[in-house]
Amino acid sequence: MLEGVFKSSILGKAQEKGIVSLNAVNFRDYSTSKHNTVDDTPYGGGGGMVLKPEPIFAAVEDVLNGQSGSARVILMCPQGETFTQAKAEELSTEEHLIFICGHYEGYDERIREHLVTDELSIGDYVLTGGELPAMVVIDSVARLLPGVLGNETSAVTDSFSTGLLEYPHYTRPAEFRGWKVPDMLLSGHHANIEAWRHEQALQRTLDRRPDLLNQAQLTDKDKKLLQKLKAQKITNPAD
Amino acid sequence: MLEGVFKSSILGKAQEKGIVSLNAVNFRDYSTSKHNTVDDTPYGGGGGMVLKPEPIFAAVEDVLNGQSGSARVILMCPQGETFTQAKAEELSTEEHLIFICGHYEGYDERIREHLVTDELSIGDYVLTGGELPAMVVIDSVARLLPGVLGNETSAVTDSFSTGLLEYPHYTRPAEFRGWKVPDMLLSGHHANIEAWRHEQALQRTLDRRPDLLNQAQLTDKDKKLLQKLKAQKITNPAD
Repeated sequence: MLEGVFKSSILGKAQEKGIVSLNAVNFRDYSTSKHNTVDDTPYGGGGGMVLKPEPIFAAVEDVLNGQSGSARVILMCPQGETFTQAKAEELSTEEHLIFICGHYEGYDERIREHLVTDELSIGDYVLTGGELPAMVVIDSVARLLPGVLGNETSAVTDSFSTGLLEYPHYTRPAEFRGWKVPDMLLSGHHANIEAWRHEQALQRTLDRRPDLLNQAQLTDKDKKLLQKLKAQKITNPAD
Repeated sequence: MLEGVFKSSILGKAQEKGIVSLNAVNFRDYSTSKHNTVDDTPYGGGGGMVLKPEPIFAAVEDVLNGQSGSARVILMCPQGETFTQAKAEELSTEEHLIFICGHYEGYDERIREHLVTDELSIGDYVLTGGELPAMVVIDSVARLLPGVLGNETSAVTDSFSTGLLEYPHYTRPAEFRGWKVPDMLLSGHHANIEAWRHEQALQRTLDRRPDLLNQAQLTDKDKKLLQKLKAQKITNPAD
């Protein structure tokens, strides 16, 4: 499940360049029971299975190889802190990240309390396992490491890095099925284009994610512009 | 990149059972240029590349095979609506979902305006492409389809389906490295256990994700209990 993603694109290249090293460990290999059991029924009854503490502790401690305190041990779970770009930036400064990924089951609470340093959730939806969320976090962290992205500026100009959603992009053809590129972008007036793009970014953020405006760094000019855009929105609610 | 995830676990089983059919299409195959180009520089200047409209329209229209209106055409992008469990449930009632996944580039705005029915973002972080987000959405939607999960009740009792975070789980051993399972869970009093678990779920949601309490369906008893827990939290802020 992990291999295809680990070998592809940015993660594959980051490994080839020696910037990132990715290693998958199956905690089932650390089971001490006859049938490599890693889960058991919950104390107190109820449905579902719970991942036992022993194999997870043993697997993580083996990976740490006695160097505890040197790694972040991250549990991917719906109860975790919601993953954000700020968290990606924080994790990108770490040397060693260990992700614990369960499948279907719950985790014995002692794993959370005594082994894990961070609990992360990638969003408010239910998935069948922690693998996809771990890959999402790995991808977002890896692309922030120096040398991973070809264009060093790309990592900082994307959505969420600036605090605003991106303005609309257009490329050739100038007309496609009768739908034209805005005249402004063909005008060649770079200052006007920049102003238009910034207004579009503000407009899009206002329309789609007004919650982001609370955290975005806005100039006084931006704030005035936003008041104008809000007033237009009330006048023309169909927009 | 997609194959490992599509073949694994729940998605693999769902396909074997004939409940889900997954198909990856490379829109590069729909380029009409000599070098299979699918992107170009942005009108108005600036860094980065923009995905051209023609190959994406051609690829989606080929998949639709004249049956437009019968499918949701979903663009995975940071500017999209934030994906939630409610959206997963909505999409699980659809016959046909098409995900457009770019890599690095922006999308020509005409793709958004004239081809796409939904724009989705899985969270406020930047990823290198739309593939991982699409797999996340596919996983969360597929597990909701009847017959995909072994235990039919699992899909509805998870976090976010109940509106509260899950209570702590424990399994054998009753004592691990000196850390014991709470006595309550070993008591055998099922009604008390259920009450304890419900209080723990409320406590955890209050501690970690108080925003979820606004949407959760709470009884009058829950509301009273929450007031008590909030008061305790103020008295003992270290908890």
